[in-house]
Amino acid sequence: MSARLRRVVAEFLGSALLAAVVVGSGIAAERLSPSDVGLQLLENALATALALPVLILLFIHISGAHFNPVVSLVDSAIGLRAWRDTAVYIPAQVAGCIAGAVLANLMFGASAVSWSTKERLGAGTFLAEIVATAGLVLVIFALARTGRASVIPAAVGAYIGAAYFFTASTSFANPAITIGRMFSESFAGIAPSSSLGFIAAQLLGGGIGYLLVRYFYPRVTV
Amino acid sequence: MSARLRRVVAEFLGSALLAAVVVGSGIAAERLSPSDVGLQLLENALATALALPVLILLFIHISGAHFNPVVSLVDSAIGLRAWRDTAVYIPAQVAGCIAGAVLANLMFGASAVSWSTKERLGAGTFLAEIVATAGLVLVIFALARTGRASVIPAAVGAYIGAAYFFTASTSFANPAITIGRMFSESFAGIAPSSSLGFIAAQLLGGGIGYLLVRYFYPRVTV
Amino acid sequence: MSARLRRVVAEFLGSALLAAVVVGSGIAAERLSPSDVGLQLLENALATALALPVLILLFIHISGAHFNPVVSLVDSAIGLRAWRDTAVYIPAQVAGCIAGAVLANLMFGASAVSWSTKERLGAGTFLAEIVATAGLVLVIFALARTGRASVIPAAVGAYIGAAYFFTASTSFANPAITIGRMFSESFAGIAPSSSLGFIAAQLLGGGIGYLLVRYFYPRVTV
Amino acid sequence: MSARLRRVVAEFLGSALLAAVVVGSGIAAERLSPSDVGLQLLENALATALALPVLILLFIHISGAHFNPVVSLVDSAIGLRAWRDTAVYIPAQVAGCIAGAVLANLMFGASAVSWSTKERLGAGTFLAEIVATAGLVLVIFALARTGRASVIPAAVGAYIGAAYFFTASTSFANPAITIGRMFSESFAGIAPSSSLGFIAAQLLGGGIGYLLVRYFYPRVTV
Repeated sequence: MSARLRRVVAEFLGSALLAAVVVGSGIAAERLSPSDVGLQLLENALATALALPVLILLFIHISGAHFNPVVSLVDSAIGLRAWRDTAVYIPAQVAGCIAGAVLANLMFGASAVSWSTKERLGAGTFLAEIVATAGLVLVIFALARTGRASVIPAAVGAYIGAAYFFTASTSFANPAITIGRMFSESFAGIAPSSSLGFIAAQLLGGGIGYLLVRYFYPRVTV
Repeated sequence: MSARLRRVVAEFLGSALLAAVVVGSGIAAERLSPSDVGLQLLENALATALALPVLILLFIHISGAHFNPVVSLVDSAIGLRAWRDTAVYIPAQVAGCIAGAVLANLMFGASAVSWSTKERLGAGTFLAEIVATAGLVLVIFALARTGRASVIPAAVGAYIGAAYFFTASTSFANPAITIGRMFSESFAGIAPSSSLGFIAAQLLGGGIGYLLVRYFYPRVTV
Repeated sequence: MSARLRRVVAEFLGSALLAAVVVGSGIAAERLSPSDVGLQLLENALATALALPVLILLFIHISGAHFNPVVSLVDSAIGLRAWRDTAVYIPAQVAGCIAGAVLANLMFGASAVSWSTKERLGAGTFLAEIVATAGLVLVIFALARTGRASVIPAAVGAYIGAAYFFTASTSFANPAITIGRMFSESFAGIAPSSSLGFIAAQLLGGGIGYLLVRYFYPRVTV
Repeated sequence: MSARLRRVVAEFLGSALLAAVVVGSGIAAERLSPSDVGLQLLENALATALALPVLILLFIHISGAHFNPVVSLVDSAIGLRAWRDTAVYIPAQVAGCIAGAVLANLMFGASAVSWSTKERLGAGTFLAEIVATAGLVLVIFALARTGRASVIPAAVGAYIGAAYFFTASTSFANPAITIGRMFSESFAGIAPSSSLGFIAAQLLGGGIGYLLVRYFYPRVTV
């Protein structure tokens, strides 16, 4: 019980720090580089690409360091984690991402909660979130199923860092982060009206990623 | 047969994702940083340098993760892979790169196919493609022949990231990517009239790389 | 005695080089990229993120490569290092950081000592320094207590690189560096009037980090 | 004899590629980002930081991958390599760096040889070259003497990438590269009148680095 609570706390805290990184570096970038949106995204992407592997290293031995409902769902679907774990992970991830966005707002002197008005949904970004999430799932589970789990932190950080640029949606690829980002009227925010479409695309992408994992890595090998 | 099909599918999908990264981040960079071409190339290069190792990790255990006809040709010439594999890899790589460019166009709301009009061929870029491709071949096979295959993903990503800047051609170094990039009228595109010269230089560079591998690493060591 | 002296000299020299990196790259960035503060911070952050792992690698086998009084205090509190070591480490770290700031000033042709007038303290940056330092302590000791010490250099470099952007304070997270930065009237400087508040927040954050380590990693595992 | 020739050819080719990276990415950066010198240096530094580890990986098993007379001199002084090797390495390194600068000029459509007129020498840059070279020597031999040679490629790349910014001289730290850079009238060039002072500082820094290695790592450990 105590160990299980620690796992849930790890998912909460890791998700909070991830959201604080994504939203905080987004606010910093927007304020410091006002004249070039690409430079803002570069700063945002590099901060995320550097922090994400560290957060995964921090908590991978405790909770698995998902910080992402899609990853937890696939983890259970594939048989690596009990469904009752995933059932408590998901609310912890969502609550963590909201808390992290609030923390970022407070560090940067914005009001604790400020709803984002940034519309992001469109045909291109819907497609992009499918691609981004399918790729993320494929990366994680391809490595997990082939005895290369120690490479997952660096690979996930690099993948997300690249996906900020190569997908048209800047690659949220995570329903919990999508919800957290609604709470910040800033560069990293997303309007609530866009978030449902993003989450739908992420779930669809997660399913496609799951099928790709089953096709390419049908068995666990070491 | 099923295993061989999976290898070919891996080359197709990996090449598609690579082209989506190169073209997609090129479109993003062009739109987001309109006032500085160097910053555009930096964003394009970093996205590629981060994504390429991940794509190699994803598929190296399945197909070898070439995504590049020159690499497949050298792999067979050096005796590591059957020529009949390379004969099916190459069309899969070319088809994948075209599909990836189309996917990038769609994610960014451009028309699915838009022929590039970007002329790139000249004496300097021809020389640059020879250098870039010879270096790429030397990196891959030097590591493969000395028991350091686990370093290949990071080394190839770093090499290509640097080569975006130190070669005058931004280092395509890959005939399949060269063909795929013809399908996008954007920062990352190449006019069909320039692509034949690029491919000739890449084949020449691949041959030089092969000779350098034979000279420096005549035997496989561990 | 000779071995203990060498440990203290290692802390002094490592701290000096760290401060030279932080202040030196700050001066360079300010001069070279005058029109975009975000780009200045990016250059400053990347130089630090690249150099910090190298400095840790250099001295980790000798002194533990703390370069930071908070890390030394937690190291002793957790029972990994004698308190009498920490008692000599801390003055060496402070003296080293001052020497490094002076060295940076001299390399860039500024006067050897120029007091910073850059006010940085506020509610947001106080909170940010707590978060930054707690995170740093958690990263280091989570890895140290789980047999992953070899990952610490890269993880600390990546964490600090990200924290330049995601915290509102640019993440000093180190009382010795805070004191050293007072000695440079430049982009990386901090006014003496702001430094006490920063150090208080860092000590508070270090305490929180210590408690998080005890909660998540109560035992040493390998 | 054939093996020794191969070592010398490796030093020549590796030095040539290193100079092509440094000079080539310098020319590219200067042309692509004309409005911000810091961004030019960032592009130049990242290309070097990414390429240098790859070049070291390529040739470390053959020649030791020095590409730098100071490193070869310390290698012999410390007893790891015969002086007669160093006596042939140094001319190969210098010739290689000149050839690489010429190659970069040709790739970018400049005349093959164009003497640089960029004055760089001053009290600050002289001090900076001492610091840069001493640090480089300390990094390489600290790792070599403690059984961590496999980390040298990444550590050297990261160190030089940071040193572009934290030293006031952009950290040449290599007499052969200093000579090669005289042959390119570009961002990365150095006027012949400045190069003797740079080389003197590098030799002095190499000596200090050697003494630091003897002090901190008096014995080889594994």
